[in-house]
Amino acid sequence: MKSTAEILTAAKSAAGNAALSTGQKNRALFTMAEALESNAAEILAANRQDMENARGRISEVMLDRLRLDESRIRAMAEGIRAVAALPDPVGRILSENRRDNGLLIQKISVPIGVVAIIYESRPNVTSDAAALAFKSGNVCVLRSGKDAFYSAMAIVRALRNGLHTVGVEEDYVNLIEDTSRQSATDLMTANGQVDLLIPRGGKGLIKACIENATVPCIETGTGICHLYVDRAADFEKALAIIENAKTSRPSVCNAAEVLLVHRQIASAFLPRLYERLCAPGCAHPVELRGDEAVCAVIPAKQASAEDFDTEFLDYILAVAVVEDTEAAIRHIAAHSTHHSESIITEDQAAAALFTARVDSAAVYVNASTRFTDGGEFGLGCEMGISTQKLHARGPMGLEELNAYKYLIYGNGQIR
Amino acid sequence: MKSTAEILTAAKSAAGNAALSTGQKNRALFTMAEALESNAAEILAANRQDMENARGRISEVMLDRLRLDESRIRAMAEGIRAVAALPDPVGRILSENRRDNGLLIQKISVPIGVVAIIYESRPNVTSDAAALAFKSGNVCVLRSGKDAFYSAMAIVRALRNGLHTVGVEEDYVNLIEDTSRQSATDLMTANGQVDLLIPRGGKGLIKACIENATVPCIETGTGICHLYVDRAADFEKALAIIENAKTSRPSVCNAAEVLLVHRQIASAFLPRLYERLCAPGCAHPVELRGDEAVCAVIPAKQASAEDFDTEFLDYILAVAVVEDTEAAIRHIAAHSTHHSESIITEDQAAAALFTARVDSAAVYVNASTRFTDGGEFGLGCEMGISTQKLHARGPMGLEELNAYKYLIYGNGQIR
Repeated sequence: MKSTAEILTAAKSAAGNAALSTGQKNRALFTMAEALESNAAEILAANRQDMENARGRISEVMLDRLRLDESRIRAMAEGIRAVAALPDPVGRILSENRRDNGLLIQKISVPIGVVAIIYESRPNVTSDAAALAFKSGNVCVLRSGKDAFYSAMAIVRALRNGLHTVGVEEDYVNLIEDTSRQSATDLMTANGQVDLLIPRGGKGLIKACIENATVPCIETGTGICHLYVDRAADFEKALAIIENAKTSRPSVCNAAEVLLVHRQIASAFLPRLYERLCAPGCAHPVELRGDEAVCAVIPAKQASAEDFDTEFLDYILAVAVVEDTEAAIRHIAAHSTHHSESIITEDQAAAALFTARVDSAAVYVNASTRFTDGGEFGLGCEMGISTQKLHARGPMGLEELNAYKYLIYGNGQIR
Repeated sequence: MKSTAEILTAAKSAAGNAALSTGQKNRALFTMAEALESNAAEILAANRQDMENARGRISEVMLDRLRLDESRIRAMAEGIRAVAALPDPVGRILSENRRDNGLLIQKISVPIGVVAIIYESRPNVTSDAAALAFKSGNVCVLRSGKDAFYSAMAIVRALRNGLHTVGVEEDYVNLIEDTSRQSATDLMTANGQVDLLIPRGGKGLIKACIENATVPCIETGTGICHLYVDRAADFEKALAIIENAKTSRPSVCNAAEVLLVHRQIASAFLPRLYERLCAPGCAHPVELRGDEAVCAVIPAKQASAEDFDTEFLDYILAVAVVEDTEAAIRHIAAHSTHHSESIITEDQAAAALFTARVDSAAVYVNASTRFTDGGEFGLGCEMGISTQKLHARGPMGLEELNAYKYLIYGNGQIR
C-alpha cells in the first residue's frame, strides 16, 4: 500500500514535468477508455466486493448508485471519449498587450497543477474526474468514499494501465489508498502539494472541506434553488417549469426546493399548481409545504421555518406567497445557497430587476433551474457546480480547471 | 464603538442593495478624494497620534511608512481619482451562447460582494484598497494594523463623508474598530458574510490567513524571485537586469532574491557581476552569498542552504551555478514562491523551455522581475499580487475583483 504522502510526492513530481500535447492527451484518453472496457471483469469483481460490504449499511438508493454493470462501464468509457473530443483548454492566449516600453505581455491558460477530488460512493466519478483533470493538463489525486473503494481501485488501475500503454506517466492519475478520515484531512492541508481541492458530495463533506482546508478549495453543490412566479407570469409556462424543476430529477442539486408566488396571483395560481403537482394520478405527487397564505388557498401541509432552508432532494416543495419581486429577491438573498434561481414573468422590468439583483451562479428568466449543468451550458462536461464566487461559479468545465500565467517578453527592459 | 459583527452585518446589507452605475461610482470617488484633502488636518492629527504611540516600538523604516504629510495625502487623493478614470469592470458580457433549445446564456461580470482586507501599517493602503473595492462594485471591510489605526479611522471617516455627500450608502467602506487579534480571526471565519479575504502584508499575516481562513482567501505577496543567466545570455542585458531587479527597490516583493548562472559562463560572467554590484563606489553595494562554485570564482560570502529560501528584502543576493536550463527550472520549482522569475538568454529554445516549464505568476524573458505590478502590466492599479493559482494570479486589478454569474433567458424551456 502506498501512503498518502508518497502519492502526493509522486503527483507533485508528475505535475512538474513537461506538459503533454493535445494529441498525446487525446490518445491517452482513448486508451484509458479502452482499458476500462477490457478490464471490465476485474472492475465488476471489485464492485461486487464493494456491494457486499455495503449491503445493509447503506440505503437501496445508495446501493444503486454504487452498482456497476457492463453497460455502466461502457458509459464511463464513452464519457472519457467525449472528453477527448472537447477542445484543449491549455495554452490559450487570454489576452495580449504590447507596452510602451516594448514589453509584450501575454496571459496564457495553464493547468492548475495537482487537483485533489474528495468524493463519495459513485464509481463513475472516478473515471469522470480523472478524464477531466487529465484533459485540462492537471494531475489528479482522487479520494473515493470507503463504500466504493475497491471499485475505484480497479478503475484507477485500468486508467493507469491505459496511460502506461501510450507511454504517459501513470502518476497523472492517483488514488489515495487510505480510506480513513485522516487521508481526507491530509489532502485538505497539503499546502504546496495540492493546488486545488474539490469536494463532490453531500453537505457534510463540503462543510468539512470548507472548515478544514488550508489549500485552495472550491465550494460545490448544495442547491436550495428558488422559482418565483411573478404576477405577470404565463401560468402554463410557470406550471411546466415548476413541474420540471421539481420532479424531473429531485435528487440533484439543480432541482427546485422553494416556490415563491406573487400575492396578486396567488389565489388564481395556487389551485392550478395543486392540480398539476398533487392531484391523484400524478406519476409522482409532490408534497407541498406552504406558509399561512398558501394554506389559506390550497390544502398544503403547514411549512416550518426550516422548510425554507432545506435541500429536500425529494418530492417536496416549500411554497410561500410574497408581496412583490423585491420581496422575492429579499427572500432568496436570505435563504438561497446561490446556486440557481428562476423568475417566471412576461414583464421585462421584473425580469431585469430579478437578474440584476439575485446573486446566484445561474439566474433564469422563464426556464427551469435544471439547466444548470456543464453539458446544458455548452461546456461539454462538468467537474462540479461551484456555489462560491472565487475562481469559478456554476458548472465547472475544462476551462475552469485551468489557471493562467503571464509571459513577458523583453529585450533587456529594466524599470 | 461598533462591534465587528455589527460592521459585517452592515457590509452584507450594503452589498445586497442595488448596484451603482458607473457614473455614480465615479462621482463618489471624486468626492471621496476631495474629502481626503479637505479633512487633511484631522487625518494628520490622527497620524501624529499613531506616530507617537509607535515611536520606539517599530523601526525607522516602518515609522517612515506610517508617516503622513500633506503631499502624501494629496497622493492618496490622486490615487483615488486615478481609479475613477479606469474602466468599470462590472457588467461586462464575458461570453454569450445561444443553445439549440433557444436558451440564451450570458456570462456577466459582477462584484464579488464583501471583500475583507487585512493589512499592516501603511495608511495609504486604506484609501487605495477602499477605492479599488468601490470601483469594482464591492463593499470593503478594512482591518488596519494597530500601528496605523487612528490614521485609518480618520481616512475612512473622510471617505464615508465623501460617500454621504453624493448620497451613496456609507457602508460601502467599513473599518473594523477592534484592533485585537480576535477581529482578524472573526474576518477569517465570517462565512456567509465575507466573500473574499485578501491579506496584504508580511509572511506571518499571510500564513495566518491561509491557515485559519474558512472564507475564500487569496494568498498574496511573498516573492522569492529568481533570475537565470543562461549560457547564451547577453552579459550587458544580464547585468542591467540583475542590478535593476535587485537594487532599484529591494524591499518590494518583485525584487530578485536569487541568481542562477549557467556553468559554462560562470567564470566569465561572475567577475563582471561582482564588479557591477559589489565594487567600491556602487551606490548600494550588494552582498553576494554564493554556493561553492560561485565562491571559487569571486570573493562572495558562503551561502547557507536557507539563503536560497529567503526573501531578503535587502541588498543581499543568493547566487548559485547550475548545469543548464533544466537545472535552473528544477531549482526554481523547489525554491520559488511562484511570484516572478526571469531568464536572460538570446537562445529562443532556452527561453521557450523556461517559459513553458516555470510555473510562476509572471515568467520573463530578458526583462527585470520588477515589472510585476498592476500599473506596469496595464491594469491601471493593483490590490495585491496573487501567488496562488485559483481565481487570480499575479497583479490583481479591477477585473480580478469581480466574479461572474450566468444569466439564462428562456421562453418556458424545460429539460
